[in-house]
Amino acid sequence: MNDTFLKACRGEKTEYTPVWIMRQAGRYLPQYRKVRENVDFLTLCKTPELAAEVTIQPLEILKVDAAILFSDILVPLEPMGIDLEFSEAKGPIIHNPIRKESDLDRLRNIIPDDELSFVAETIKILTQKINVPLIGFAGAPFTIATYMIEGGSSKNFSKAKTIMYQTPQAFLRLMDFITDNTINYLISQINAGVSAVQIFDSWVGALSPYDFSRYALPYVQKIISAINHKVPVIYFAFNSGSMLELVAKSGADIIALDWRIEISDAVNKLSGSVAIQGNLDPCILFGTDELIKERVSLILNGAKGAKGHIFNLGHGILPETSPEKAIRMVDAVHNYGKS
Amino acid sequence: MNDTFLKACRGEKTEYTPVWIMRQAGRYLPQYRKVRENVDFLTLCKTPELAAEVTIQPLEILKVDAAILFSDILVPLEPMGIDLEFSEAKGPIIHNPIRKESDLDRLRNIIPDDELSFVAETIKILTQKINVPLIGFAGAPFTIATYMIEGGSSKNFSKAKTIMYQTPQAFLRLMDFITDNTINYLISQINAGVSAVQIFDSWVGALSPYDFSRYALPYVQKIISAINHKVPVIYFAFNSGSMLELVAKSGADIIALDWRIEISDAVNKLSGSVAIQGNLDPCILFGTDELIKERVSLILNGAKGAKGHIFNLGHGILPETSPEKAIRMVDAVHNYGKS
Repeated sequence: MNDTFLKACRGEKTEYTPVWIMRQAGRYLPQYRKVRENVDFLTLCKTPELAAEVTIQPLEILKVDAAILFSDILVPLEPMGIDLEFSEAKGPIIHNPIRKESDLDRLRNIIPDDELSFVAETIKILTQKINVPLIGFAGAPFTIATYMIEGGSSKNFSKAKTIMYQTPQAFLRLMDFITDNTINYLISQINAGVSAVQIFDSWVGALSPYDFSRYALPYVQKIISAINHKVPVIYFAFNSGSMLELVAKSGADIIALDWRIEISDAVNKLSGSVAIQGNLDPCILFGTDELIKERVSLILNGAKGAKGHIFNLGHGILPETSPEKAIRMVDAVHNYGKS
Repeated sequence: MNDTFLKACRGEKTEYTPVWIMRQAGRYLPQYRKVRENVDFLTLCKTPELAAEVTIQPLEILKVDAAILFSDILVPLEPMGIDLEFSEAKGPIIHNPIRKESDLDRLRNIIPDDELSFVAETIKILTQKINVPLIGFAGAPFTIATYMIEGGSSKNFSKAKTIMYQTPQAFLRLMDFITDNTINYLISQINAGVSAVQIFDSWVGALSPYDFSRYALPYVQKIISAINHKVPVIYFAFNSGSMLELVAKSGADIIALDWRIEISDAVNKLSGSVAIQGNLDPCILFGTDELIKERVSLILNGAKGAKGHIFNLGHGILPETSPEKAIRMVDAVHNYGKS
């Protein structure tokens, strides 16, 4: 078992900096696209043998130091009573969004081991087959709430914020519901065998620090507190570099950074209290091999002094990326300081 | 003449905090929509009497302390040889984007007083008619470059970054071209009579601090240096709160903030060296009157200690905003500390 990733999570010394890539199982890989030829996205998530197969693909191709369960942060929404579709053109669409307080009455608490049993099954297959740690994940409550209210992706989150600012009690009731269900969902993943979990807060950068403190952070804290150090928790609050000190109050063991912040700045601000994950701009993989090597080195240099560092992109790998470039990046991380 | 805005720009003491709103002349106003019934967006920009009329509308309706020229950051692109369309559905579309170095050969330097004479005419009409300072503006080179390359708005700026990372010399040649023309354009606005200028860097938040320092900041510095304190310069680097110290190196007199940073944090980081503009989340205007008043007060409290403070939203006012709420906001700023 390659435990470099878990050592870095715990802030222990490692022989080299471990690396994995957000969306490492995905459309940029021809092997993934081949599996998808015969199955739609949501069916793939719900079919343990296939979900396990695509989870494993990047381990062999890229030689990364961790696997991440192939799924989507919106998968748990269906059994909650949300009518979810993944459109190839438009991304996720929710056909019955939450728009007023009474809409909350139709939400149902989920029993993950029952209604999402395919997730636990996928995890069990994977832990038998792979020799790197498996990362489970869930969306953070604020991000899930915006999808439920907006009905999909959004530019300004005006519907979600209108509910938040007009009827905060309704918004917070939704946040409580999502938080409780997310705790159960993550615990079920941990019981099935994941070695770490990542909480994706993709849209939390839409909030001011004041609103983040009130409407998002307490719910992430509650989840992390409920996990109670059973496994390391990574919190990825995308586009929140201007309020990093608040993000660190989440209690996460690892703070994942996007590329908008200098990693040495983040290390200084967090003063060695947590491990750090990140933070290469995914578009650097459109550059030359020399550029990739140079920028990987800059990040690894900048992360010196961190309690632990896990190399990653600052966001998911883009579908138009060449797998060769991703391999170059992983190699550059693993070979850093060796020549 | 109400010179509160200009006093705040210069860091002088004011009786109250001046306020204006980005996109204050725009679709949220029924009076603006009435003018637009008979004229498309680009024609409106190019018709001095009408552009002046919509510039004046919010002064009377909102009682703001500054006017901003009605125009668009992409208006100067047409005489450069860019085929520009404003689509009601999709926003700006460029039909002949820059995709390779040889495409740069078809760009033409502009003579603003000639090819953009409607801008100077609009400014001259306005300075006769209004009793608040008039703000001119231009897009920052990086933001303009992304439009030219992507051909419109973009999610990941992958085309612009591919050029930047694959052929930096081509990207920087484009940046030089835009910078030189932007200097001439802003100088022509200043000569026509604007009292201040704002440089909009709407997409610069797509860059890491490392790339911002290399591919964006030097060009903004060159523009501000060329303006040479003829009028105060506001630099609005949207979504750059995690690299505020770098943004301040632009040399701007006023740094405009989005809502993702606590204003007191910004004041501390800039240690009183520049004035600050901002930074209410535009979605707060979807909230109750009480909420608006409360959040305005929080920002005004937080800005104490700044060298100067100009109140504004942290981004353009959204089209679905009620004008009544914008009036409430302006009143709250003007009445702060009076009861």
